[in-house]
Amino acid sequence: MKIVVIGGGAAGLGAAGAAQGVDPQAKIVSYTKFEDVAYSPCGIPFVHGKEIESFDRLFLATKQQYADQGIDIHYTTTVESVDVKRRTLKVAGEGEVKYDRLILATGWNYEDPGLPGGNLRGIYRVKNIREAAEWDKYIDGVKSAVVVECGPIAVEMVSALVHRGIKVTVVDPAPWPMASIVDPDIIEPVRKSWEEAGVTTMWGERVTSFGGDGTLTHVDTTAGRVDAQLAIIGTRKVPNTSLAKAAGLDLGATGGIAVDARMRTSATDVFAAGDCIEIPHGVTSVPLQGLSGSHAYAQGKTAGINAAGGHREYQPVYVPWAMLAGDWMIGGISFGETTATALGVKYVSGSSKGITRARYYPGVRPITVKLLADPSSRCLIGAQIVGGEGVKERADFLGVAIRAGISIDDLASMENVYSPAIGALNEPIAMAAQAVQQNFRRL
Amino acid sequence: MKIVVIGGGAAGLGAAGAAQGVDPQAKIVSYTKFEDVAYSPCGIPFVHGKEIESFDRLFLATKQQYADQGIDIHYTTTVESVDVKRRTLKVAGEGEVKYDRLILATGWNYEDPGLPGGNLRGIYRVKNIREAAEWDKYIDGVKSAVVVECGPIAVEMVSALVHRGIKVTVVDPAPWPMASIVDPDIIEPVRKSWEEAGVTTMWGERVTSFGGDGTLTHVDTTAGRVDAQLAIIGTRKVPNTSLAKAAGLDLGATGGIAVDARMRTSATDVFAAGDCIEIPHGVTSVPLQGLSGSHAYAQGKTAGINAAGGHREYQPVYVPWAMLAGDWMIGGISFGETTATALGVKYVSGSSKGITRARYYPGVRPITVKLLADPSSRCLIGAQIVGGEGVKERADFLGVAIRAGISIDDLASMENVYSPAIGALNEPIAMAAQAVQQNFRRL
Repeated sequence: MKIVVIGGGAAGLGAAGAAQGVDPQAKIVSYTKFEDVAYSPCGIPFVHGKEIESFDRLFLATKQQYADQGIDIHYTTTVESVDVKRRTLKVAGEGEVKYDRLILATGWNYEDPGLPGGNLRGIYRVKNIREAAEWDKYIDGVKSAVVVECGPIAVEMVSALVHRGIKVTVVDPAPWPMASIVDPDIIEPVRKSWEEAGVTTMWGERVTSFGGDGTLTHVDTTAGRVDAQLAIIGTRKVPNTSLAKAAGLDLGATGGIAVDARMRTSATDVFAAGDCIEIPHGVTSVPLQGLSGSHAYAQGKTAGINAAGGHREYQPVYVPWAMLAGDWMIGGISFGETTATALGVKYVSGSSKGITRARYYPGVRPITVKLLADPSSRCLIGAQIVGGEGVKERADFLGVAIRAGISIDDLASMENVYSPAIGALNEPIAMAAQAVQQNFRRL
Repeated sequence: MKIVVIGGGAAGLGAAGAAQGVDPQAKIVSYTKFEDVAYSPCGIPFVHGKEIESFDRLFLATKQQYADQGIDIHYTTTVESVDVKRRTLKVAGEGEVKYDRLILATGWNYEDPGLPGGNLRGIYRVKNIREAAEWDKYIDGVKSAVVVECGPIAVEMVSALVHRGIKVTVVDPAPWPMASIVDPDIIEPVRKSWEEAGVTTMWGERVTSFGGDGTLTHVDTTAGRVDAQLAIIGTRKVPNTSLAKAAGLDLGATGGIAVDARMRTSATDVFAAGDCIEIPHGVTSVPLQGLSGSHAYAQGKTAGINAAGGHREYQPVYVPWAMLAGDWMIGGISFGETTATALGVKYVSGSSKGITRARYYPGVRPITVKLLADPSSRCLIGAQIVGGEGVKERADFLGVAIRAGISIDDLASMENVYSPAIGALNEPIAMAAQAVQQNFRRL
C-alpha cells in the first residue's frame, strides 16, 4: 500500500509516522513545498526575541532520520492537483503519482489584509524557519514596527520586538488583542504591561496602506501615519484548501476541509488533518479551524492510523490554550464571556483573583481565574486565566474537566495542594468556582 | 449560643470564622496554649533557609483583627479537661467555662522518638513560630545537624540547613525519605540532589541516643556516631487527643478523633477538625490522619458551620500533595505503588518522563509522572510526580480527576496546551496514561 501525505508540518509528519506504525510495510511518501520539516515553528518568535539563541535549536530531527525511518520526503516539491477518482496527484517535476491513500495536511496561511503596498519589502508573515532566519537579520536594522491585527503569534512578536529595543505600534480593528479568544478583563494586565514597555496601541483602528519605495517606511492607518520599517501581519489563520477545493472535496462552514471523526474527507481514501480542516467544538458543536500544533499532531496521528487501516476516532475539542503575553501568561478553555455571548451560549460566570504561592514566598505572582458554567447542568463550559505562572497546567486541567462534565460544585469543593513555595492555601480555580456558586444563588 | 473552639491553628481559626459567618450573634471563644494565632507554620523551614527574610512575614492577621471581628481568643491558656455531659471546660486560670457547642482543633505532635538524651538542648521540633525565631539564632552556631527520620517537614529542613552551610546527616529506618508517601523512583532525583549538596544519608538505620553535656554534641546511630549540635525531629505526626481521650470521645484506628462527615464526634454538640481527627480516604476508605493545612482549614470550616447550626458535609479525601525537595518538586495524589501494595490495593501503573517546556526553551526541566489505575474500572486511583515545575497544579488536577472517576483512557486522549515557553508538545500526564494503557494490553 502506498500512502501519500501532502504537507510536512505537525499534522503531516504525525500522519506519516502513525501510518508507518500501523503498517510498517506501507510505502509512505510525503511532499512539502518547503526546504525543511520537523522543526518547531512555534519557537520562531522566541528566537527573534533572543530568548532562544538560534533557529537551529528549533529542529527536532534531521532529514537523515526520516530517511532512515523509511519516510520518503520530497522537499521543495509542489503538488499541483489531486484527482481523487483516479487516485493520482500531479507533482511538479515528477508528473503523475499514484496513491492508495492520501492525507492532506496543507496547513494554513495568514488572511490576506489586501492592502495597497502589500508587496513592499518589510512586510513579515511569521511562519517559515528559513525566511525567519533572513528576517532576523532584517530586524537588526529596524527601529519601528507595526503589528497589523493582533493574533496570538503577533502577541508573541510584540514581546520579541520590545526585547530587541524596537518601537512597536499595534493596530487592530478589534477593541483589544486576541478579541475573538480572550475577554477584556483577562487581557487587561497584558495591555498594561505593553504600555509600561512603551508599546503604542490603536484599538478599533485599521491599517489602510503600506508605504515606501521598494521597502516599507511607513504605514497609514485610520488614526494617522506611523513610521515603520517592519510590519508584522497578525491576521487570522485561514485554511490552505486550494488543492482540496480544486479536487472537489467538501469544505465546511469555516472554509476548512470537512472531515469525520476518523479524519476522512468526502472523497474515498482521502484523509485530512491539521490547520486545513475544521472540527467540532465540544460544548457548542460549532466547527473550529486553526488550532494549535498539538491539535494538528493529534489529528495527523488519527488520520495516519486510519489511512493505514487502523481505527482511531478524534474527539470534539475543548481547546485548552495558553501562551506568554507581555509580562503574563494568559490562557483558557473553550470560550470566555465575549465569545459565549457572541455564540448565544448562556452561562453563569464567576472569577477570583488569587496568588500562585504563599503570599510571603519569593516569586509569588497574582493569578486570575474566570469560570463559565452551564445555567441548567452547572457543568463547566469555559474558562479564562491570566497569571504569572501555572497557567498552562490549569488550562489542561480545566480542558479535561469540561470534557468529563465536571460541575462548578465539584471544583468549588476540590482539594488542593498547599505548600508555601509552590501553592497558596486557596486554589484560585476553587475560589472562582465558589464565586460562580454565589452568582447562581443570585439568579 | 456560645461556641468554644480549642486550638488556634488552621482548623481552629477556620472553625471560629465559619461559625461566626453562619451565626453572627453567637459568642465565639477560642483557647490556645500558644502566644500567637494566624500565622503560616508551613513557612518556618523557608525562613530558616533564608528564602523568606523574617518570621514576621508569616503572620496573616493581627490579634486586634480577631478582636475586632468579635472572636475572643484566649492566648497562652491551657484547657485542662472537658466534661461533655455538663458541657463545661476546666480552663487554667479561668476555672469552669460553659459551652453550648465545642470544637476540638487540638492539632498534632511529632511522635516521640523515646530516646536517651531526649532532653538535651539542640533537639528541635519545627512547629511553633516563637520557638522557631529562637532556634534560628541557635542555628547560626551549628556546624553539623542530624535529621531523625525524614518526614515532609524534615525534607524541607534538609534544604534549609544546606542553604545555611550546615553539614547534614539524615538517619531514617525507612529505605528512602518519606517512604510512606512516595515511591523510590520518584524520590530518586531528590536523593541525588542531596548527595550533590553534600548531605550524608543513612537509610535503614536508627538513632539510638542523643549525647552531650546539657547541649547536644553528637548522635549515636546503628551505623555509628555522628557529630551534631542540632537534631531535627522528623518523626510522623500523631494526633493530639489527650483532652478528647480523657473526655471519653471515640477515637479511630489511627488514634485520631472519630468524626462523621459533618465533623461531629461521638459526644453530642462536640465537633472536631484538623490534625487531631481522622477521615476516610476516597479510594480505600482507610482512615487517614495528619494531612495538610488546607485540609485542616476546610475541615475547620465544616465543623464551624455545623456547630453554628448550618449544614456542610466534608467529603472523603484523595489528598493531592506537593512540596519542594532538594532541587525538585515532588507530589502526588492518593498513593503510589509502595503504599498501594502495602494496602493490598490492586493497580496497573505506567509512567512517563517528559519536559515542562519546549526542549529548546530556557528553563525547561524534566518531569516524571506515574499514574495508577484500577484494574477493572480503568479509573485513576493514584499518582506520583517529580519535576522542576508545575507539580502542584498537576497534583490538584489529578486529585479532581480521581474524585470524578476519570479513567486512564480519558487522560490518554486529553488535549493539552502547547506553547514553547510554558508547555511541551506532549503533556507528561497524557504520556503516562498512554503508558498505563500499554501495560493494560500486556495483562
